[in-house]
Amino acid sequence: MTKRIKYHLFRHFSVGKAKRKPVGQIPGTAIHTGERKLDEVLITLHEYSESDYTTREISTPTEAASLIPSVTKSWIQIRGLHDVERLRPIWDMFALHPLIQEDIVNIGQRPKIEPYDDMVFMVMRMIVPSDSLTDKTETKGKPRQLHAEQISIILTPTTVLTFQESDSNVFDPVIRRLQTSHTRLRKAKVDYLSYALMDTVVDYYFQGLDVLSEEIELLEEKIIRKPSESDLQRIHALRRDLIYFRKSVWSLRDGLNSLLRDDSTMIEAETKVFFRDVYDHVIQVIDSIENHRELVFSLYDIYMSGLSNRMNEIMKVLTIIATIFIPLTFVVGIYGMNFDPEASPWNMPELNMYYGYPATMLFMVLVSFGMLYYFRRKGWFK
Amino acid sequence: MTKRIKYHLFRHFSVGKAKRKPVGQIPGTAIHTGERKLDEVLITLHEYSESDYTTREISTPTEAASLIPSVTKSWIQIRGLHDVERLRPIWDMFALHPLIQEDIVNIGQRPKIEPYDDMVFMVMRMIVPSDSLTDKTETKGKPRQLHAEQISIILTPTTVLTFQESDSNVFDPVIRRLQTSHTRLRKAKVDYLSYALMDTVVDYYFQGLDVLSEEIELLEEKIIRKPSESDLQRIHALRRDLIYFRKSVWSLRDGLNSLLRDDSTMIEAETKVFFRDVYDHVIQVIDSIENHRELVFSLYDIYMSGLSNRMNEIMKVLTIIATIFIPLTFVVGIYGMNFDPEASPWNMPELNMYYGYPATMLFMVLVSFGMLYYFRRKGWFK
Amino acid sequence: MTKRIKYHLFRHFSVGKAKRKPVGQIPGTAIHTGERKLDEVLITLHEYSESDYTTREISTPTEAASLIPSVTKSWIQIRGLHDVERLRPIWDMFALHPLIQEDIVNIGQRPKIEPYDDMVFMVMRMIVPSDSLTDKTETKGKPRQLHAEQISIILTPTTVLTFQESDSNVFDPVIRRLQTSHTRLRKAKVDYLSYALMDTVVDYYFQGLDVLSEEIELLEEKIIRKPSESDLQRIHALRRDLIYFRKSVWSLRDGLNSLLRDDSTMIEAETKVFFRDVYDHVIQVIDSIENHRELVFSLYDIYMSGLSNRMNEIMKVLTIIATIFIPLTFVVGIYGMNFDPEASPWNMPELNMYYGYPATMLFMVLVSFGMLYYFRRKGWFK
Amino acid sequence: MTKRIKYHLFRHFSVGKAKRKPVGQIPGTAIHTGERKLDEVLITLHEYSESDYTTREISTPTEAASLIPSVTKSWIQIRGLHDVERLRPIWDMFALHPLIQEDIVNIGQRPKIEPYDDMVFMVMRMIVPSDSLTDKTETKGKPRQLHAEQISIILTPTTVLTFQESDSNVFDPVIRRLQTSHTRLRKAKVDYLSYALMDTVVDYYFQGLDVLSEEIELLEEKIIRKPSESDLQRIHALRRDLIYFRKSVWSLRDGLNSLLRDDSTMIEAETKVFFRDVYDHVIQVIDSIENHRELVFSLYDIYMSGLSNRMNEIMKVLTIIATIFIPLTFVVGIYGMNFDPEASPWNMPELNMYYGYPATMLFMVLVSFGMLYYFRRKGWFK
Amino acid sequence: MTKRIKYHLFRHFSVGKAKRKPVGQIPGTAIHTGERKLDEVLITLHEYSESDYTTREISTPTEAASLIPSVTKSWIQIRGLHDVERLRPIWDMFALHPLIQEDIVNIGQRPKIEPYDDMVFMVMRMIVPSDSLTDKTETKGKPRQLHAEQISIILTPTTVLTFQESDSNVFDPVIRRLQTSHTRLRKAKVDYLSYALMDTVVDYYFQGLDVLSEEIELLEEKIIRKPSESDLQRIHALRRDLIYFRKSVWSLRDGLNSLLRDDSTMIEAETKVFFRDVYDHVIQVIDSIENHRELVFSLYDIYMSGLSNRMNEIMKVLTIIATIFIPLTFVVGIYGMNFDPEASPWNMPELNMYYGYPATMLFMVLVSFGMLYYFRRKGWFK
Repeated sequence: MTKRIKYHLFRHFSVGKAKRKPVGQIPGTAIHTGERKLDEVLITLHEYSESDYTTREISTPTEAASLIPSVTKSWIQIRGLHDVERLRPIWDMFALHPLIQEDIVNIGQRPKIEPYDDMVFMVMRMIVPSDSLTDKTETKGKPRQLHAEQISIILTPTTVLTFQESDSNVFDPVIRRLQTSHTRLRKAKVDYLSYALMDTVVDYYFQGLDVLSEEIELLEEKIIRKPSESDLQRIHALRRDLIYFRKSVWSLRDGLNSLLRDDSTMIEAETKVFFRDVYDHVIQVIDSIENHRELVFSLYDIYMSGLSNRMNEIMKVLTIIATIFIPLTFVVGIYGMNFDPEASPWNMPELNMYYGYPATMLFMVLVSFGMLYYFRRKGWFK
Repeated sequence: MTKRIKYHLFRHFSVGKAKRKPVGQIPGTAIHTGERKLDEVLITLHEYSESDYTTREISTPTEAASLIPSVTKSWIQIRGLHDVERLRPIWDMFALHPLIQEDIVNIGQRPKIEPYDDMVFMVMRMIVPSDSLTDKTETKGKPRQLHAEQISIILTPTTVLTFQESDSNVFDPVIRRLQTSHTRLRKAKVDYLSYALMDTVVDYYFQGLDVLSEEIELLEEKIIRKPSESDLQRIHALRRDLIYFRKSVWSLRDGLNSLLRDDSTMIEAETKVFFRDVYDHVIQVIDSIENHRELVFSLYDIYMSGLSNRMNEIMKVLTIIATIFIPLTFVVGIYGMNFDPEASPWNMPELNMYYGYPATMLFMVLVSFGMLYYFRRKGWFK
Repeated sequence: MTKRIKYHLFRHFSVGKAKRKPVGQIPGTAIHTGERKLDEVLITLHEYSESDYTTREISTPTEAASLIPSVTKSWIQIRGLHDVERLRPIWDMFALHPLIQEDIVNIGQRPKIEPYDDMVFMVMRMIVPSDSLTDKTETKGKPRQLHAEQISIILTPTTVLTFQESDSNVFDPVIRRLQTSHTRLRKAKVDYLSYALMDTVVDYYFQGLDVLSEEIELLEEKIIRKPSESDLQRIHALRRDLIYFRKSVWSLRDGLNSLLRDDSTMIEAETKVFFRDVYDHVIQVIDSIENHRELVFSLYDIYMSGLSNRMNEIMKVLTIIATIFIPLTFVVGIYGMNFDPEASPWNMPELNMYYGYPATMLFMVLVSFGMLYYFRRKGWFK
Repeated sequence: MTKRIKYHLFRHFSVGKAKRKPVGQIPGTAIHTGERKLDEVLITLHEYSESDYTTREISTPTEAASLIPSVTKSWIQIRGLHDVERLRPIWDMFALHPLIQEDIVNIGQRPKIEPYDDMVFMVMRMIVPSDSLTDKTETKGKPRQLHAEQISIILTPTTVLTFQESDSNVFDPVIRRLQTSHTRLRKAKVDYLSYALMDTVVDYYFQGLDVLSEEIELLEEKIIRKPSESDLQRIHALRRDLIYFRKSVWSLRDGLNSLLRDDSTMIEAETKVFFRDVYDHVIQVIDSIENHRELVFSLYDIYMSGLSNRMNEIMKVLTIIATIFIPLTFVVGIYGMNFDPEASPWNMPELNMYYGYPATMLFMVLVSFGMLYYFRRKGWFK
Repeated sequence: MTKRIKYHLFRHFSVGKAKRKPVGQIPGTAIHTGERKLDEVLITLHEYSESDYTTREISTPTEAASLIPSVTKSWIQIRGLHDVERLRPIWDMFALHPLIQEDIVNIGQRPKIEPYDDMVFMVMRMIVPSDSLTDKTETKGKPRQLHAEQISIILTPTTVLTFQESDSNVFDPVIRRLQTSHTRLRKAKVDYLSYALMDTVVDYYFQGLDVLSEEIELLEEKIIRKPSESDLQRIHALRRDLIYFRKSVWSLRDGLNSLLRDDSTMIEAETKVFFRDVYDHVIQVIDSIENHRELVFSLYDIYMSGLSNRMNEIMKVLTIIATIFIPLTFVVGIYGMNFDPEASPWNMPELNMYYGYPATMLFMVLVSFGMLYYFRRKGWFK
């Protein structure tokens, strides 16, 4: 395993396998199935209106409960999912459906966008290049990798809730925009904030694709120049990575599509124009993944024909050497026979001729050149 | 056959072939087409309401008939399908359509969900890893395998009927939840029970996928490290297994989809939310199967190029040895010729030179090193 | 051609080619394009009601005309299509559309189900294993093959017409059921009879699939054990057979689908439940064909890598032998050189040493063992 | 190029390239883009009613103008498209939309069927085997080829216009039927004539497919018997031909489909039954093309594994010869060494033994037989 | 990279990678992401009516603002996108939505057609062969390449805006037609102008396809004649180019399709007939790309089997030489053995026979001819 894993761009993932909730578990049972990426649960409350913006770290959810009614628009950013008990008060406060609760902490969900009566629930898998993360300690000096993390966004009429696995700073650009007054983000309703968050996630996909493109181009160059056995493992790892990437994005398309057609009042018409833009970008990402996959198939073809080419070359060397020297060895073998020249005048009289040896050598030189000429005409020295 | 079968993860199955009911049989004729997995037919009646739960084994169906009207909600769990005569009283009691009767015992149905006027009929193929079954005697010490079994669920207004081939304990988690009072399962109508059973079946699919993932990863590691001919048979077995798995799940998607759109009153709106969740999981399973299939194709590619690589390596060894020694053998052949040095000063005077032999040896050593240098420059020793 | 054809499971067919009606022929011109499979046209009239069933061979269609009005439900079974003039009176009696007439005798139609105002026209290709046919003389002692035959079924309000190419006894099971009184077949309207006939055709598909499965499993076992060149031809024949099979079934799906959605009164609601069952079976057949196709592709992969494996093995034998003996031959060549030991002490003094010969032999044995050890470590003897 | 082209079944075509109208040309500009296949434009007027049929060659379109109003139903057959000026009067007479004009002469259109308010415009690519054409001078003694030609049919309420590139006699069967009185063709409206023409075009497709089937079967037989390098070029040519064929037919399906659903009164309900038949045939053609494509892929697989098989055979010959003789040559090399038997009793005493030579020969014979036995057991002589 | 890039037909592009706007950027932020292709922003105003046409270069957008109201129909052609500040006044003048602004300058958009309330926004990727551009200095003497450029067209009720990256003269044919009075272009509304521009873009696609066809045919001929390793890189480059081409055109189809179904009044019914024509052409382009892709796959197959063929040929040469000479060398080795004829009459008496040497030579000649005959019969000299 160790041999293979080192070529993957995605850290910590397995295409098919994940910690599973036990079979027959009461549906809607929230059990965290990911690895613990963060030691404590961080809750940050961002309150904003057109004119004001405040942010504070909240230690107890009850504290949040007392605060939220007092503001018009708010965003509660929750980081860390391992401690379900800490999360439950917030879930209760917003009366989240048990299946939503389960999906938030059950890492490995397909992306989906589900409209409920009074909220919209979105699960996405964010894919971020490792060098776009704040905490660069882990990745220093290593090649760029991809970091995947499940993001859940819940849009209620006046509040947006986000749940992340780690404390990665992926939403910092949105926070910076929230800090700027008189932007559309500050003016618009919270549905626009949910759009801004989703747009950020989709923007990262393009960066993730760039990492993959880079790897493909490096590999392409490498395989054309000098194919080696490990290249095939890199191709295989790329295929796995692309399967994972596609799986992470694919169903977002249908989700967004049905969101755009939905007549619910959760998302306003003029925000929908922006969601349509996100939808376009998602399709563009999916197209790109498919194109990358084709390129990877093409790389495999190059690799395989590279192998065949090298085999041809090896065989050519062998054949040239063997074809030149085997007949010559036969010739020298003839004159190594011990027929007794004295027993008969027919028995190898060449051995006693004056120019016997040089003539034989000359003959062999001529044969060699004949062979070389033949090979050259066949284009074997191209 | 014996050689191939040992790599299959599924026990007892054939992709295309099954015992068939005879051609032209009266449609709706119930004939058990599976192998006898259980010696007798076990009938268990679970009665429950929000407050109570009782269970009893029933020996005669007529006994059941006398009991059922007395309870509000009940689940009749029938295990063992070989004895159609034992099953018929129950079928008659619920007035099952002849085609439903046929489908229950005719093993090898495509999964389907068919709404009738006063009942919903669901056929599924449950796939369970062998180590999740109670009866582990059969599988002790063997690698994990998959156990497939046809499950039929019939939802009527107050009763759920389930038909299984064997007495495997797959529904035990649901029974345990039924034993707990004040759960949603106890409170809700029987449509929620049918959901809970179906959800259990789908949960097992994920476990089945894990078994396949594991096999793929083991094989991947094996093929990269040291490919052997049997690996191809494992790849082929994996393909067959995945075809079978997909066939077992695929049509469930359409069935669930039309169930969700159906306006019948058999399934209540708030239970539909849960069925939507099952639907999502089924799609996730199908996606995973497709992804696994791609990985298996990729494994085949690795295997094939592994073969080519090994061929290249074998040829390189041959070519290096032959290319070095064939010319040298020619050289020593020259000095083995019997030209008579005394017949002419041109005839191999080297033989009588003072340093003839060591010079020849040195020459050959130089040629060898030249060759080796040439191969190194070509990267053949990489 | 003779070489290839022997591996086909289908007798007498060509995927692309068939006798064609001439270009520009008046559309609706009935010309029999199949080969003559039966010398005369057999017409059998089955009359039945809930209580009675009579059958008689009819020699003149006019006779039929006089008889039919007197019964409630009837089935006219026509076998043999070569004599269009014999068929025409029946066509006229039921006022069949010219295009229907053309399709009945024009062998090689795609399966289709076309509702007309007062009749439903169904064309199917029946596929029957040769050992399921009565007339087994042709196939005795031969491996199982598949027999394909075009079946046309015309459903009118009180009569069902069937047209077959040969006098094969494929519908005997239905006849036997007709002979049993008080069955649903006897009670129901003729639309149920048309269903029973169609269901029989589809049941035979499963038997046909079994023949294919068997061939695939035999071939699989053969290829894994000992691949030979003829296996590839069997794979190719299987592909052709599967293409033909799929072509014979594929469009039936759409036909049945539109029949089920059709609101015409030709087929009653409660018979539609049965047609839905046929539809399910057709989908199952198509799925199985696709799965078989995948398995055949997989067989090809096994075959190809089997070739590569054998090549590797051949090369390994060559390389081991050559690598061991070429250097040894060089060594013995050295001591075959004729340098004169008396001309110089440097000239092959080994030749006169006391242990010269055994030391050389020992050296060569050591070299051989070294080589063998090297190959073993490389895993070439695995 | 010359090497490749000879295997194509289609004469004069290029899949991707054609003479193009210049970029930015005024849309609707009629410029003939095909090669000049006919020196003059032939205009034939067919007038017919149920009782009468007359035909005449028309030299000036104005003549036609004066004639047409006098008849009920007419067909103007125009052959030769190179002289746009000659065609324009007819276009003007029927007030054809500029885009229709452009499409008629711009060879290389996708087939399409476009309903306009008062006319239906159909463009098709007719594909005819060369031996079905009148003018056989060009193809005498050559293998059958395919001739492609663009056919435009315009259906107006009382007149059908057809435009062909060459004067090929493809519509002769329709003309012969027009000459027969009291046929449906003579009785029905002109929409039935347009059907008859289209049906003729589609009938030719089946003949074209037969030519391809034949080529595939010939190639199949050839490749199985004795594959050669030119076969691959034939495979490639077949792929190109099938791509071209599919391109020529594919979009006809959608066109016919929308025509059948169109509610316009241009085509009467009872003629639509016939168009539905054409639609069925088009689907059958497309299916066949796809099946042919699969067969061609399968041929490629046979070809490639044929190459591998031959390589295996070559290698086997080499390996058998080398493996037998290399060790023997080593043995004879030993006894060619010049160790001095007189210097030591250890030095090759065999050379002076009484049976030394025959024993050595016997030993070598035994070794050879041992090798041969080994190879036989490995199945190399199969 | 340098090695690979030289085979690409597209200059300056990367399938997956492009300069990206920063993640989390305020949506609708216009940042130019392309490379600077033009040093200044050129704004050209074309005013036209049925009778008049004037054109002028505008230096300040405000100047444009003062002019536009005075004309009925106008086209503002903007070339050069790097200077967003220069473009903003025009955007403001037409009140373009921020997302439109972003899309105009954000190079790398998928083609799309978005109807807004009072405008239609179209983004396309124009693909032009390098020899169709005015500025041929860059491409002189080089093989034909493809130039890709993003074109945005905005249709408002009386004005059409176009945005291009470079000052390429691609729209010159439209300008020439604008200069001609009494054309449909001058008479019709501006929606017809937008059609004319789009039609021009699509016409260039056909030219682009011609460049690809040419490359494919050249490569085909080359690979059949004499395959070399660089051909594979050309195949790979073609695949990349075709992926890029498809990506550039693909989504235009959906855009046009929804435009045709749109009921907005921006495009008049009679102009829609022309847009339907563009739609047809786009489908034709997409079909052609798919066909080209298939041909390229076929090329790869030819290439690979060419490699195998060459390998076979090399192996045949080696095998023939080795098989002839290895046994002969063995024979001469026998007579090089030093068995002492004097020690025993059995010891190589041939050496002293009168015709020993010539008989041996004759024997070897016969063996050679036997071998050659064997190879000829096997067809190795074909």
